[in-house]
Amino acid sequence: MTTQEVAAKLAEMCSVGKFEEAVEALYSPDIVSVEAGAPPGQSREAKGIAAVRAKGEWWVTNHEVHASTVEGPLVAGAYFAVTFKLDVTFKPEKRRFQMEEVGVYKVVDGKIVYEEFFYSM
Amino acid sequence: MTTQEVAAKLAEMCSVGKFEEAVEALYSPDIVSVEAGAPPGQSREAKGIAAVRAKGEWWVTNHEVHASTVEGPLVAGAYFAVTFKLDVTFKPEKRRFQMEEVGVYKVVDGKIVYEEFFYSM
Repeated sequence: MTTQEVAAKLAEMCSVGKFEEAVEALYSPDIVSVEAGAPPGQSREAKGIAAVRAKGEWWVTNHEVHASTVEGPLVAGAYFAVTFKLDVTFKPEKRRFQMEEVGVYKVVDGKIVYEEFFYSM
Repeated sequence: MTTQEVAAKLAEMCSVGKFEEAVEALYSPDIVSVEAGAPPGQSREAKGIAAVRAKGEWWVTNHEVHASTVEGPLVAGAYFAVTFKLDVTFKPEKRRFQMEEVGVYKVVDGKIVYEEFFYSM
């Protein structure tokens, strides 16, 4: 798949909440995933598909999604950007919040090899 | 200005080649600008408006722009993304090339405080 095709597929799957399915379908085994920040002592980077699956499972287990919007993609060469707007409850604290973030992705040989998220902490 | 307003203004100015004017109008004195890569021994980061102006002047002096397209912005909270597609000649080598990149920007108090560019080296 081209960058444009991977980008369109990711946006389509995430817009219907298929985050984990998107990882299985579109991500390289060697994916590097970078968050805007991390808790003290933890890394912003998750390396490899197992670490990214674990991060996704933690997220799905701990959040209830009330609404989500995906905008984009904007595609440029091997990279593309989308935005996510989420209205969620963090279940362990029963705390509802809205978050908005930019995601930037790199595609090599039809698979996502890098993703980085930009949001205010 | 809101993030949306700054983003729209940046896209508008860059789409008509007003890159340096955009820096003057929209950037914080404390801007941090990050490239995808740097020559050996040089930093990917430029810190402060003077360093960013110098980088812009070097670029304008050394490139002839044949065509440029700006797409976006996509806005999420304090961040936004645009893409640039450029057809340019690097004048010192008379080498013409096309480049495509994603730019991610952060806005605080109506000014751009951070920008990062994603492109293949």
